[in-house]
Amino acid sequence: MDIDLAATWAEAEHADLAGRVAVVIDVLRATSTIITALRAGAERVIPVETVEAGLATAETLGRASVVLGGERGGLRIAGYDLGNSPLEYAPEVVRGKTIVLTTTNGTRALLCAQKADAIVIAALLNVGAVADWLLKRNQDVTIICAGTEGRLSLDDLHCGGMLISRLLEPGLVRHLSDGARAATEWFASDAGNAAYVLASCAHGQRLAGLGFADDLAYCAGIDAAAEVPVWDGSAFVRAATSPEASPE
Amino acid sequence: MDIDLAATWAEAEHADLAGRVAVVIDVLRATSTIITALRAGAERVIPVETVEAGLATAETLGRASVVLGGERGGLRIAGYDLGNSPLEYAPEVVRGKTIVLTTTNGTRALLCAQKADAIVIAALLNVGAVADWLLKRNQDVTIICAGTEGRLSLDDLHCGGMLISRLLEPGLVRHLSDGARAATEWFASDAGNAAYVLASCAHGQRLAGLGFADDLAYCAGIDAAAEVPVWDGSAFVRAATSPEASPE
Repeated sequence: MDIDLAATWAEAEHADLAGRVAVVIDVLRATSTIITALRAGAERVIPVETVEAGLATAETLGRASVVLGGERGGLRIAGYDLGNSPLEYAPEVVRGKTIVLTTTNGTRALLCAQKADAIVIAALLNVGAVADWLLKRNQDVTIICAGTEGRLSLDDLHCGGMLISRLLEPGLVRHLSDGARAATEWFASDAGNAAYVLASCAHGQRLAGLGFADDLAYCAGIDAAAEVPVWDGSAFVRAATSPEASPE
Repeated sequence: MDIDLAATWAEAEHADLAGRVAVVIDVLRATSTIITALRAGAERVIPVETVEAGLATAETLGRASVVLGGERGGLRIAGYDLGNSPLEYAPEVVRGKTIVLTTTNGTRALLCAQKADAIVIAALLNVGAVADWLLKRNQDVTIICAGTEGRLSLDDLHCGGMLISRLLEPGLVRHLSDGARAATEWFASDAGNAAYVLASCAHGQRLAGLGFADDLAYCAGIDAAAEVPVWDGSAFVRAATSPEASPE
């Protein structure tokens, strides 16, 4: 298993994803929200690029079956049901629904992942479950850290480094890219301090200023979830217990 | 002093450079070569984007006064005098000349820096001299690591982290960006091992495979040079002993 890591979606645009599994990480907050929504009983999550595409998709699918979620500038969008705070995605709101989600950085990172053989969603919430899924699949992995507006974000780098540290344990990994090595060292230097990393990184400080301090504490909940969201060709759904066999 | 760091030119395209000093780092090998050429007595170094632009610039300036240097795929370009190995830029070849240089990653990083108030060239060779220059100027700094083909490269991240560690010592720094923190921790985790980082990073291994192992050892020569190449509006030239006063 070869592990590559792109520290931003700007960098991921230059990554070669052919024959690999892409793992998309946007701890604050898109991938934490997708995991939480599926855990709360949502049927599927469809990421869309624009506010207008979200409204159109909800109309096509039937407005009553859809929860429209997302943010611009960190805040809920006019006409949308929910923002991008995972704490809003409670079972009574999302159970049985299709979530249509548009976010600034997470959506961009997901678009970068489209050329991979498979796409998996990770955050601190499900890092152990994703590691288990990847180890069973045993295919080369590219971790795409969303970052913030094209810039490196330590919440995502920390989660990427933590995921790599879990993958390294069983001895299947043969090669780490430069970015994967940098993330691993970052994580080792700060191991166990996820809550501090989320509170001190630029994006965390911005969210706290917008009143989302509770989101930071929630998103720092390592291994709180067993769900592994995978792309089924049109949406993210809960993975079956075992991954599909690698085409290799 | 606020320190920001972009880990790749792909990321640097999203950085706000207004009112800041940009420090461009491409240890393997463009910025090591620029420092070496000025140290060997070259008058100035003009970076150009394309092979054709280099040939045209040499023609305009007078072919005899110019040394045309650069690489594509790591190798010398047909019709050019030198490649991108700093070891080729000896005093007997470059003294009194204008160097016209085109490289794959370094040139791209230099173009990203154009919106800054000032542009300085750094590598392991001159990291101490650049730190002194920046501390005297005492303006906000954005370090642009060139990386390799849009991807993070540990040679540049290591040099960026080393530069930040030198800037932190005198107590002028008030803020580190997420990228600056990541580079600082990377450097702290591997401090003193520049030669190993250059030999083990993806770009170093590729250069060694092309026969440039001697370049890796040379480029790992921390503080071997006192030259600080600065942009004068049309070329990189040796900085005067003290930086110009900040416009702030």
